[in-house]
Amino acid sequence: MQRINYQTLFVELERVLLNRGFAKDKAKACAEIFTNNSRDGVYSHGLNRFPVFVNYIDDGFINIDAQPTLVNSFGVIEQWDGNLGPGVLNAQFCMQRAIELAKKNGMGCVALKNTNHWMRGGAYGWQAAEANCIGINFTNTIGIMPPWGSDVATIGNNPLIIAVPHKNGHIVLDMAMAQFSYGKLQEYELKGNELPFYGGYDTEGNLTKNPKSIRETKRPLPAGMWKGSGLAIMLDLLASILSGGKTTAAITESGKEKNISQVYICLDMNLYPNAGNIADEILTYTKQHKQGVRYPGEQTLKVREENMLQGIPVDETMWRKVKSL
Amino acid sequence: MQRINYQTLFVELERVLLNRGFAKDKAKACAEIFTNNSRDGVYSHGLNRFPVFVNYIDDGFINIDAQPTLVNSFGVIEQWDGNLGPGVLNAQFCMQRAIELAKKNGMGCVALKNTNHWMRGGAYGWQAAEANCIGINFTNTIGIMPPWGSDVATIGNNPLIIAVPHKNGHIVLDMAMAQFSYGKLQEYELKGNELPFYGGYDTEGNLTKNPKSIRETKRPLPAGMWKGSGLAIMLDLLASILSGGKTTAAITESGKEKNISQVYICLDMNLYPNAGNIADEILTYTKQHKQGVRYPGEQTLKVREENMLQGIPVDETMWRKVKSL
Repeated sequence: MQRINYQTLFVELERVLLNRGFAKDKAKACAEIFTNNSRDGVYSHGLNRFPVFVNYIDDGFINIDAQPTLVNSFGVIEQWDGNLGPGVLNAQFCMQRAIELAKKNGMGCVALKNTNHWMRGGAYGWQAAEANCIGINFTNTIGIMPPWGSDVATIGNNPLIIAVPHKNGHIVLDMAMAQFSYGKLQEYELKGNELPFYGGYDTEGNLTKNPKSIRETKRPLPAGMWKGSGLAIMLDLLASILSGGKTTAAITESGKEKNISQVYICLDMNLYPNAGNIADEILTYTKQHKQGVRYPGEQTLKVREENMLQGIPVDETMWRKVKSL
Repeated sequence: MQRINYQTLFVELERVLLNRGFAKDKAKACAEIFTNNSRDGVYSHGLNRFPVFVNYIDDGFINIDAQPTLVNSFGVIEQWDGNLGPGVLNAQFCMQRAIELAKKNGMGCVALKNTNHWMRGGAYGWQAAEANCIGINFTNTIGIMPPWGSDVATIGNNPLIIAVPHKNGHIVLDMAMAQFSYGKLQEYELKGNELPFYGGYDTEGNLTKNPKSIRETKRPLPAGMWKGSGLAIMLDLLASILSGGKTTAAITESGKEKNISQVYICLDMNLYPNAGNIADEILTYTKQHKQGVRYPGEQTLKVREENMLQGIPVDETMWRKVKSL
């Protein structure tokens, strides 16, 4: 496995973006988010997704110069239009606004419409936690799985991120609504492995652990079946209503995952001086009986440290591809 | 199956509470919530749970005269102490406060410590929706399932409720973090049925559909496995930190499900004039391909109507028990 040091990867991604006409500060911020995602072990939304991001730019789906503009301000609540700018920059901007609202009012809610894919939602949870805020953010997506009881993919993967700052490493849940994402299915398929649990349906309509069958039927299972299905629907409702933006329905019908809707909520942790002890109590109690039990986000710091020391593992095909861009 | 009309059930529950020394208005409000839960088809947290509620009163775990008291007010955020009053009344009170904060500021967040079981969390989601607010509420509970990777029940069932007002029937998700609650397991067991999907582990550590085995091992599966496990941990963190109240750890160690912690968040729907159209678009698109697909809460109004017309189905043993209290 090839490993590349952080700076090398960052400079390469920045170079491509500058070539594509990005302003200097935007190229830097954007390259940083992609590099950080790989650094934290989320390769699928770091280097490996970067060529798709560049395609979207080349196809005109991402407006590299667009800035978010304020649509409405209701005190602790704001609505912004992403104007189809780079999703990662819009997301970072809106989480920053939610942080500012929370620092001022205790709490803030920013809803964003007409944005593009934010890559790894957890990045903005970490951003909130590093600003000493509880962060809750979610997005709708293009339809990727059937709602419970159906066999047509009309609901989104709609990731939900909840982040709680903690001195020993922030606690960050980053969960999408499918039990296994398409990226994960592909990973298992490429290795020739079965899934460890049922992940969807095959062409006969039976539950299967075969990742290829699930990709063929486009019937992955919602996490928790009817529960993840219901939660995906609610997150789409909240994201679309609060932002006044497009629904999974409209995004799916358009055929392209763009013009998506997102929500960013922050609470200022300075209001909760005893939070550290409470979090310690919960994590200690949860983890006490088995060594393998991990809290959400626990692995991130370990992977980050390893990748900063030893270099970030890169898929050689992807790395060559990016260098040729 | 015996059916009892709404008023008969309500009067009977109210009578028991008055006998136990409840003030008149509290007996009425409390009996109403329990009766409404049965009316809406949530029998497990209506009539069938009422005798347990009365036991808790008789054992001194519920202080029938206690009123919530304000601990801290940070503008749009408030912290309340439930003083171990009846959980259903504390919950109704705090959702009402969150509604008032939202009507005034667009958004409000009320956290509650030292409360008791709220029975059906969805009741307060409906309450928010009827006040034309988006409602998000959640609670921690006593430990009822192992976190992912463990075999000791150190995390709670921690229900999460998300409610969106809608003219054709509010959209209300009411989901606990276990794939099947203990109540559901018992229901299947009593009917001699297997679960439709794996619901937990047997004594050999294998996944099983046998409800009895799961109740014996106390190893129900989190909904979505690692995902529901992670979400349960985050909800406990949020509920305990925001309220400054007890964690699932402390509640579980105490051996009794009391002094629990809860959160109520509201957003004023008047800020979102296009919400109805957006919700219609999502629901229509989601349900279009199969007749059986339901949105969260869709069944509630149908069951409510049927039970108001034909009477509320009651378990005869429970009904006799309550009449003898």
